[in-house]
This record gives sequence, structure tokens and C-alpha cells, in this order.
Amino acid sequence: MYISMSRLLLPEEHVAELLDAFKNRAHLVDGAEGFVELEVWHSDREPGEVIMVSRWGTKAAFTAYMKSADHQVSHGRIAPTLQSVIKLDRLDHLHTYEVVAR
Amino acid sequence: MYISMSRLLLPEEHVAELLDAFKNRAHLVDGAEGFVELEVWHSDREPGEVIMVSRWGTKAAFTAYMKSADHQVSHGRIAPTLQSVIKLDRLDHLHTYEVVAR
Repeated sequence: MYISMSRLLLPEEHVAELLDAFKNRAHLVDGAEGFVELEVWHSDREPGEVIMVSRWGTKAAFTAYMKSADHQVSHGRIAPTLQSVIKLDRLDHLHTYEVVAR
Repeated sequence: MYISMSRLLLPEEHVAELLDAFKNRAHLVDGAEGFVELEVWHSDREPGEVIMVSRWGTKAAFTAYMKSADHQVSHGRIAPTLQSVIKLDRLDHLHTYEVVAR
């Protein structure tokens, strides 16, 4: 199992808008080859911190999706004002992991 | 669903020992009230980075476990030499989240 994690930090007043964007997402990724699950985590200690975690059967499936048109379309749907505050405060661009134990 | 995440950074030569410790863990947490799952993630870009993610039905279940004797026993089983290199290089102590969207 392969994990992709993006950690976002944004002004607290924009968090509800970001979470709404996730709840109304296009679900294009759900049909991607090797896609398992996407979760959005909201910190209960740092109100402006939101983490997006996606699961993939293999690293190859993840990298293929990242190069796909669907991925471009998904990002294009995010409102420009929201996109700009996320970009400014982004802590970590992207981290990837193998699940090695349970 | 409530998430607890600990991000560890340690010298690369100690990673195999840490992962073995997880694979041979006592599984005391598995019986805790409200415990859902524990996963260990190993970065494929930063070889010394290991993340421990546990899932709980509620925040209350997680905080109750953290105060329990079982939690103390689990940590006591980690070899002192391994414990010392983890402590020195720990990036983030503990982060907690609510799963807010899928």
C-alpha cells in the first residue's frame, strides 16, 4: 500500500471553504487505476492545519494518476482565492510512504 | 474517526530495527476501547522518516488509552538504544486530527 500525504496550513477563516471544496469534490480520482481511498484530516490543535491522505495499491498507480488529465482537472476546480492562500501557507508539498506494518 | 500521528526521524541505519520493533509489537493497544487500527508508514524519499498513525472511534478513547498502563508497557518494551536515537531526532511529537471528509 502506497500513501501520499499533503499537509496544508491556511488562515483559520478559510478552513470551512477548503473542507467544503473537498466535500464537493469531483471524485475524478475515485476511478483511477489503483486508487484505494482519499481522506481529509483536520487538526484539533492547530485549526488552520488540514492534511490530505490518499492511498494507492502501488507507487506506479499514484505516479500515473499525478500525470493524468483528471488530476489537472481536479486541481483546476479549486477557487483561485482559496488556491492562493493555500499556496502561501503550504508547509510541506508532498510526502509519500509505503505502509510497512500494522 | 480520530487520528493520532507521530512523525519520527532517525539515522537510516536504525530504521530496520525500529520497523522490526513494530512488527513484533505487543499488540496491547489492539484490545483498547475504541481502538480501530495502527499503521506504520516508511518514507520512500527520506529513508530515516517513519510515521506511526493510529485510528480511534473518538478522541475520548484515544486520551483514555494514552493514560493507561498498557500504553506505558508498550513504550517500555522499546530498546533503550533505539529509544535514545528516536528521541534525539524526533521532528514532531504528536499530532491529532478528526477525519472530516472522504
